[in-house]
Amino acid sequence: MTVSLHLDLGLMLLLLLACWQTPGMVGGTVPAPPVNVSVTQLRAHSAMVTWNVPQGDTVIGYAISQQRQDGLMQRSIREVNTSSRWCVLWDLDEDTHYSVQVQSVGPHGDSPPSRAVHFRTLERTDHYPAGVLDHRECS
Amino acid sequence: MTVSLHLDLGLMLLLLLACWQTPGMVGGTVPAPPVNVSVTQLRAHSAMVTWNVPQGDTVIGYAISQQRQDGLMQRSIREVNTSSRWCVLWDLDEDTHYSVQVQSVGPHGDSPPSRAVHFRTLERTDHYPAGVLDHRECS
Repeated sequence: MTVSLHLDLGLMLLLLLACWQTPGMVGGTVPAPPVNVSVTQLRAHSAMVTWNVPQGDTVIGYAISQQRQDGLMQRSIREVNTSSRWCVLWDLDEDTHYSVQVQSVGPHGDSPPSRAVHFRTLERTDHYPAGVLDHRECS
Repeated sequence: MTVSLHLDLGLMLLLLLACWQTPGMVGGTVPAPPVNVSVTQLRAHSAMVTWNVPQGDTVIGYAISQQRQDGLMQRSIREVNTSSRWCVLWDLDEDTHYSVQVQSVGPHGDSPPSRAVHFRTLERTDHYPAGVLDHRECS
């Protein structure tokens, strides 16, 4: 059975294309997952997520995945060229269970996700009026 | 020149894989881009983006791309299973130029991006103290 060189080249190109399109198969190592992932400033319709990055890794950004526990509404946030270790979650439903996971973005790919943090938003009557958006203590 | 059936099957599988991994090659139509994209509640470190979706399209979410005009810091936000037509942009730098574009997410793919909206955050001294996170007028 003869195999043509032309087809072999085509196969190799397609294999290269498939590998190139598959995240995680490029060279280099990815950072470790974020640690100390916490939900702070919990309110009826918003919360803030903070985390730390283990020393030693080069981290150029983060990716956050937020889910309602009932499966409705998924949100993902990705930011690069940033040193931020916090993120605001807005437009949440009151008295509702959510979970959030954070990944570090490195030059060669994303870290595995952090452990999932579960939280429940406050009831409307529990919220307090001060704004958080212009607070910069956490950045 | 004989070509083996085995290789042909391999080629077809790889071609299918390449197509499957390429967004936009699935069937169905995508929604029209969002309209009336506006930046409101502009402050030193935050802003709110609002938009409308043209009638007639099935829209299940949105995707936002935010950039500093100097190229530093890119943020993308994606939310599905939502009817929200607004989004908070947090942790902005004061007195800085940004641009933002919005896409509608449909069952068969994302719309083209809206026109880019450019804005400049306020100087720190211009900011006013009321919070926006628990305001729900725009949802």
